[in-house]
Amino acid sequence: MKVFNAMEPLVAEALNEYWSDINMPCKCEQCKNDVFAIALNSITPRYVSKDNGIAYVKAQYFDKQMKTNIVVKIAEATKKVAEHPQCANFQR
Amino acid sequence: MKVFNAMEPLVAEALNEYWSDINMPCKCEQCKNDVFAIALNSITPRYVSKDNGIAYVKAQYFDKQMKTNIVVKIAEATKKVAEHPQCANFQR
Repeated sequence: MKVFNAMEPLVAEALNEYWSDINMPCKCEQCKNDVFAIALNSITPRYVSKDNGIAYVKAQYFDKQMKTNIVVKIAEATKKVAEHPQCANFQR
Repeated sequence: MKVFNAMEPLVAEALNEYWSDINMPCKCEQCKNDVFAIALNSITPRYVSKDNGIAYVKAQYFDKQMKTNIVVKIAEATKKVAEHPQCANFQR
């Protein structure tokens, strides 16, 4: 079955856009991955079928309110990972 | 970034398991895809990183309450698609 969560590319895009501005104790690939997963878990999924989904996703790029909501969720996820990093650099 | 929604394989598994028992005006691939997308949109996502996600998913298979919840969501999604099929067989 061919579906995908239209929020994934939108959150990935915003995370990549702001990643250099974000302050965290560790900015390794796993910490970035954890921020991405935690942010997606706090955003209502919007699964669409792969055929007509791409157009749907593009339309969302122009939705300022959605973009703001995503950036807020990323900031919250960043805070959680900064407080409890799970990557190898912080495992004792 | 490598994350996936651990609920996707669980919902796909349950949908495939019950698909033959489900009564719907149309059971084409798109209608099945639409049921899958609508069900996933009504279930809280559980994104995990691809590295340790597989073990997490397997553990969920034994969670009877989660399986029941998934089956209920599939039934609701099936009802919606049965009432408003979007596939080519029903477009006038």
